[in-house]
Amino acid sequence: MFTLVGVGLGDASDITMKGMRAVKEADVVFLEAYTSFLISSNAEELAGIYGKAVVVADREMVESGAVLDDAKEKNVVLLVVGDVFGATTHSDLIVRCREQGIESAVVHNASIINAVGCCGLQLYRFGQVISLCFWTETWRPDSWYERLRSNRAAGIHTLVLLDIKVKEVSDENLARGRKIYEPPRYMTIRQAVEQILEVESYKQGGAVAADGSTFAVGVARVGSATQHIVAGSMKSLLSVDFGTPLHSLVIAGDVHECEQEHVDLFRLAPQ
Amino acid sequence: MFTLVGVGLGDASDITMKGMRAVKEADVVFLEAYTSFLISSNAEELAGIYGKAVVVADREMVESGAVLDDAKEKNVVLLVVGDVFGATTHSDLIVRCREQGIESAVVHNASIINAVGCCGLQLYRFGQVISLCFWTETWRPDSWYERLRSNRAAGIHTLVLLDIKVKEVSDENLARGRKIYEPPRYMTIRQAVEQILEVESYKQGGAVAADGSTFAVGVARVGSATQHIVAGSMKSLLSVDFGTPLHSLVIAGDVHECEQEHVDLFRLAPQ
Repeated sequence: MFTLVGVGLGDASDITMKGMRAVKEADVVFLEAYTSFLISSNAEELAGIYGKAVVVADREMVESGAVLDDAKEKNVVLLVVGDVFGATTHSDLIVRCREQGIESAVVHNASIINAVGCCGLQLYRFGQVISLCFWTETWRPDSWYERLRSNRAAGIHTLVLLDIKVKEVSDENLARGRKIYEPPRYMTIRQAVEQILEVESYKQGGAVAADGSTFAVGVARVGSATQHIVAGSMKSLLSVDFGTPLHSLVIAGDVHECEQEHVDLFRLAPQ
Repeated sequence: MFTLVGVGLGDASDITMKGMRAVKEADVVFLEAYTSFLISSNAEELAGIYGKAVVVADREMVESGAVLDDAKEKNVVLLVVGDVFGATTHSDLIVRCREQGIESAVVHNASIINAVGCCGLQLYRFGQVISLCFWTETWRPDSWYERLRSNRAAGIHTLVLLDIKVKEVSDENLARGRKIYEPPRYMTIRQAVEQILEVESYKQGGAVAADGSTFAVGVARVGSATQHIVAGSMKSLLSVDFGTPLHSLVIAGDVHECEQEHVDLFRLAPQ
């Protein structure tokens, strides 16, 4: 039996009672720790709270399907930050279970995809999500631009997910066959705003105002005790210190009357 | 203190430990029971499991803000099925709290908006959500059509949320001032497919194929033990018995290679 358990966004107490029951009944508990991370708990803390050893599963273990090795005979749980189907690799595990005759189950939880409703903009007025990557000297993807432009043209909001680099090996170390991991990096709201404005400056498609006046909402550590939400022009968000990861960004479309009062709670005070 | 607690999608054990702590510390616990409903638990069952009285809050109590009456002096929890910001009325309560100087908090959970990822189509490839209403003789809203058309033209998926009518008063009884509630009604996947095909037949904008051959996925009781997912042409879903509520529907855009294997798990066997 293989059970994917979403552990939500904040800390160890965001697991559901159903998820906790799966953990209690498990022979092996893995924590998937490379597509996201829990804001205020690590694997040792989780182990303490769950009363059970929690093994960190890195990209290799998950993508190779090694986490399924024991699932035919044993109860195996894979804890996933947020909800379970935020990353294609988890879908892939469900497919592998079917192929290998392993029973599988899913315990859902909150993810940024729905929890972002806390910023005051209504979920049913969001268009397709976009994801920004850290640029390198030779790789500067901007294919998200057209989706942002299309959402904005339709007057709807865009959730912008920001890159996470965990256990990455530099090109140099990779070339030399050295498995030395770089320090983890999490894109900040400031970096995201800068990247979007830079792409706008050369695409000039009017996805956002080139002067940074487009209304946006920065959301940091959603669902945790230190959650921080600030609404204002993209430009004004550049000078906000949102603190530690994870950050996400919403580029607003038209703000409806029914959204205005709620999002106003998070507006920067006028200078 | 006023705390909005999402209780997730399935049953009483889908509440998070953080949510349960809020319930345990509450002086008053309300259950919002008109924008959705818990698939396999009612207020009495919840009360039994939570060890605490649970008061059903109907539309009037929530929309009038009566649920906040005691929140200045007491700990008041409002349980909401799914996540807390699925309905504008919950945003409104947060705004009222600020106006009235009441501290507020939110405990997130899964909602259909993210849990629908279980159907095998990737969340980052969904466009704007649409909602279908039960039509009456004089009111046949179809403004969702343009959004569906736009999503489909962009090759992305559309989550279709289906109408729930709870504690509605008929026009006749309303006119006579009689507060007699109609039996609850929940739109089925079959009714949704029929409505979409009917609107396509007169709009003829090509949002979906008029012959019902567009690929879609019906999802019923997501997150519960009786969850039922079937993928196939819209036409083929008409003859599937999805059982009791709640139902939702996904009209697929282009299905990517990384989605194909997962969604294939739910395909109708060829006749």
